[in-house]
Amino acid sequence: MDFSSKLLENAVNEMSQLPGIGKRTALRLVLHLLKQPQQHTELLVNALHTMRDQINFCRNCHNISDTQLCEICANPNRDASIVCVVEDIRDVMAIENTSRFKGQYHVLGGKISPMDGVGPGELTINSLVNKVKEGTIDELIFALSSTMEGDTTNFYIFKQIEGLDVITTTIARGISVGDELEYADEITLGRSIINRIPFESSLKSN
Amino acid sequence: MDFSSKLLENAVNEMSQLPGIGKRTALRLVLHLLKQPQQHTELLVNALHTMRDQINFCRNCHNISDTQLCEICANPNRDASIVCVVEDIRDVMAIENTSRFKGQYHVLGGKISPMDGVGPGELTINSLVNKVKEGTIDELIFALSSTMEGDTTNFYIFKQIEGLDVITTTIARGISVGDELEYADEITLGRSIINRIPFESSLKSN
Ligand SMILES: [Zn+2]
Ligand SMILES: [Zn+2]
Repeated sequence: MDFSSKLLENAVNEMSQLPGIGKRTALRLVLHLLKQPQQHTELLVNALHTMRDQINFCRNCHNISDTQLCEICANPNRDASIVCVVEDIRDVMAIENTSRFKGQYHVLGGKISPMDGVGPGELTINSLVNKVKEGTIDELIFALSSTMEGDTTNFYIFKQIEGLDVITTTIARGISVGDELEYADEITLGRSIINRIPFESSLKSN
Repeated sequence: MDFSSKLLENAVNEMSQLPGIGKRTALRLVLHLLKQPQQHTELLVNALHTMRDQINFCRNCHNISDTQLCEICANPNRDASIVCVVEDIRDVMAIENTSRFKGQYHVLGGKISPMDGVGPGELTINSLVNKVKEGTIDELIFALSSTMEGDTTNFYIFKQIEGLDVITTTIARGISVGDELEYADEITLGRSIINRIPFESSLKSN
């Protein structure tokens, strides 16, 4: 693309760094901002800058949080002995939306995926294993999406905590195999938490 | 959506103000920024801010330009007596890409569209009519997309300059009726400029 303006070209190039946003879409979005009052761009720019600059992760569950300890971890009515292991904040939001889970979460920050260069060290697996070793967790619920990467991650964690005094379960596969957790409807997702099964059983039924 | 962080929620809300970006897509984009080094967000934010703050429009053709007069209008080899009337910068980029047009442009900034609240006053039509009245333009080429709004806009301008000493042409409809100009392939688009026909003829062939 040949731009008549370096300012425009820069904006389009940066915008098209975002996943799923091609040059043409980026140009459309940027031209939209130019048609709107300047204040619209400033609101967007300030929101992104402030978020990236001040973002914080809960020191217990690693979810995105504006406080040191997130609202869920700080809530005395939540059962800290049951921990649901999820990939990212979207899964926490999806499960919270069902109102069927009263334990805590552990946000891994992704799945093990050698293809994308994501090893166990990039995730918060050590922190999870250490929490289990402290002995306060009775049950670990694996709630990653049932893809190859999800299964690999579950299994890796399972091996790390083998022999420790903790029950491992996995959410019932009411949701179709291969589907992303966050797209499941809340009733199905709520039921799959209630009907969770021992992780070992899930290995056999594969 | 229930967010665990106001910072995140603000960023998602602002991002989802962009056309075609829903809340879910906005969340995906924002989480991507959080996974990248902070510098990525700063580059995006600075590019958008600087563009919106310092953007300039060519005082002759109204195209986006970093200088008072854009490169095309400032180029003595371009023929100022032939002016191609387009909707926005994407059309200029598309036509320039064909290398078949050596005149100048006039960027309207949109099409007349009562449904979207865009009247003639929101566009640079007065400026175009004044340029024609100055008598230095021999030919006006209408190159708006052949939609109802495009046809309305052509006709509105045509009526404004009726009786003045200028030829009005419209690009040949090599490109399918209803198609957006910017998506046409460059050969077809180049030919449709070469084979332009008198505007009056295009009214009869409708
Ligand atoms: Zn927490
Ligand atoms: Zn110009």
